[in-house]
Amino acid sequence: MESYPDSKGDCLEHRPKGDRSYAILGTGALGGYYGACLQRAGLDVHFLLHSDYNHVKQHGLVVESPSGDFTLPYVHAYGDVAKMPPCDVVVVALKTTQNHLLPEMLASTVQEDGVVLVLQNGLGIEEDIARIVGSKRVMGGLCFLCSNKVGPGHICHLDYGQITLGEYRPGYQPSGITEQMRQIATDFESAGISMQVVDDLLLGRWKKLVWNIPYNGLSVVLDATTNELMADQYTRSLVEQLMREVVAGAAAAGRIVGDHFIQTMLDHTEKMTPYRTSMKIDYDERRPLEVEAIFGNPLRIATASGIDLPLIRMLYRQLKFLDAKNRRTKGTGD
Amino acid sequence: MESYPDSKGDCLEHRPKGDRSYAILGTGALGGYYGACLQRAGLDVHFLLHSDYNHVKQHGLVVESPSGDFTLPYVHAYGDVAKMPPCDVVVVALKTTQNHLLPEMLASTVQEDGVVLVLQNGLGIEEDIARIVGSKRVMGGLCFLCSNKVGPGHICHLDYGQITLGEYRPGYQPSGITEQMRQIATDFESAGISMQVVDDLLLGRWKKLVWNIPYNGLSVVLDATTNELMADQYTRSLVEQLMREVVAGAAAAGRIVGDHFIQTMLDHTEKMTPYRTSMKIDYDERRPLEVEAIFGNPLRIATASGIDLPLIRMLYRQLKFLDAKNRRTKGTGD
Repeated sequence: MESYPDSKGDCLEHRPKGDRSYAILGTGALGGYYGACLQRAGLDVHFLLHSDYNHVKQHGLVVESPSGDFTLPYVHAYGDVAKMPPCDVVVVALKTTQNHLLPEMLASTVQEDGVVLVLQNGLGIEEDIARIVGSKRVMGGLCFLCSNKVGPGHICHLDYGQITLGEYRPGYQPSGITEQMRQIATDFESAGISMQVVDDLLLGRWKKLVWNIPYNGLSVVLDATTNELMADQYTRSLVEQLMREVVAGAAAAGRIVGDHFIQTMLDHTEKMTPYRTSMKIDYDERRPLEVEAIFGNPLRIATASGIDLPLIRMLYRQLKFLDAKNRRTKGTGD
Repeated sequence: MESYPDSKGDCLEHRPKGDRSYAILGTGALGGYYGACLQRAGLDVHFLLHSDYNHVKQHGLVVESPSGDFTLPYVHAYGDVAKMPPCDVVVVALKTTQNHLLPEMLASTVQEDGVVLVLQNGLGIEEDIARIVGSKRVMGGLCFLCSNKVGPGHICHLDYGQITLGEYRPGYQPSGITEQMRQIATDFESAGISMQVVDDLLLGRWKKLVWNIPYNGLSVVLDATTNELMADQYTRSLVEQLMREVVAGAAAAGRIVGDHFIQTMLDHTEKMTPYRTSMKIDYDERRPLEVEAIFGNPLRIATASGIDLPLIRMLYRQLKFLDAKNRRTKGTGD
């Protein structure tokens, strides 16, 4: 679980879905799952793939899920972004460590009046993308999803799936709830994805970091699952202290996360089944870690406001060290 | 290396060695090395052993060293502390995690006017021992030694060996240089060990922590050698920041460690050969870590003075988690 159950949000009535086309940039555990759900619901979806391209072109996508397994024998699969058609909604589902590829990818895939929907963790990404495609065309979604890619084109959805959706405005000013947001939310809802639209994307992102920073970070540094971190009195205290620093960082950015939210996150995580975080999975698979998006950007934003977050900075430095070493070291993982 | 090259200290002229007897409580990499050197120099040394008792009783001790290998085919070996004779100097060379055994061990081994010499890392240990044997009978030695036990009664001395010696006074008041200190220092010097006597044991202990806290702690948490920690810009910064916190802790205890000392430690460690710290060796061997002596006690002392050391506390919590997990987990190490 990489997000939180948000108790508030706009309630969406069902509307007839439009004929918006979707591009999924990055068909992994997250992009593959949401894209497959959208296609199953009848939307026009185009998938960008890398290593799985040949397999998926031939065999399509398989999704296993507690809410019902399904197979899409045929999908629009692309190995080359230049061959994709321009789409109404371009879903960025890459790891943030691949974001240097976005200027090229977005140049050809976004329809003239289309939008980019960033389903990534961390801070500051919409701002970067607005520089590429212009503002009022960028949305961010905070995904509360447990899923793994278990083989080529084969996604195992474990639990959850809801998305908190917000629209980007310059300087992360609250956007209000726009018609554009409602339309996209309706598409996802028609695909069985629970959606919440919020008017303050930045607040949503900081709230997500309250969970991501302690659990993603410590799971890698201490080789631990969420339940191990919660069962030990020392790491439980450390998790809570890190959460308080995230709240202080949010305050530095002008966003107030209520005190009760930390307790909600702790209680919720305590009740979860043992969970290996996405960053730990990346680490174990020797993939680059999303350290800059999740740790570096929040630190830089807080520092720019004159706020020091010493424990998050220590965790950041530990992760930078481990990430570099992990990718230098060849051989078997542990 | 678990200490630092102290540039200042009293210069000791050689004196004829007395006929002081030595008890070595804990015949491992450290106690075995110093005890063997003392015996080779003609002193009367009695070794307490645990798992190596039978082997050492039969075969004695073997020391490999760059300054010359040597074997002691016969040593006074004891498997039971109650059978040891009372000695003039009782050297505590156990891990601090075994210090709960000291009241029983010291009851019978310290001669009436004998002293206890603590060759352990961390803070506050002399105070505990003074409660057992009385004050003005306790000394502390800070060992700057690289050695490993490579087999039963088999010690491999890699480098260094000097000891900074200080005497305990209630409340860690500076002791001046006493005749008792000079005598013991002379014994060690006759055994080829470079000695420095200092009048402020507590300052010496805090200075040693400037090295031990960052390198011992991070080497375990990040599975790293000293040179890896120095080569990476992020961990190098973290090492330095942790050192600054130790200096702040020392100041809270009324001891001033000069700014140049941090730079000296960094430069010195950078020049060292790649080194696995003693805490990392303990961790890899699944032995209990000396977290309380090296991290917990300094934290408690600083907190009592109203000083927070947040990064050291974070490292402490990470180590407490890893130590508990490490000893729960059976099976092969990494």
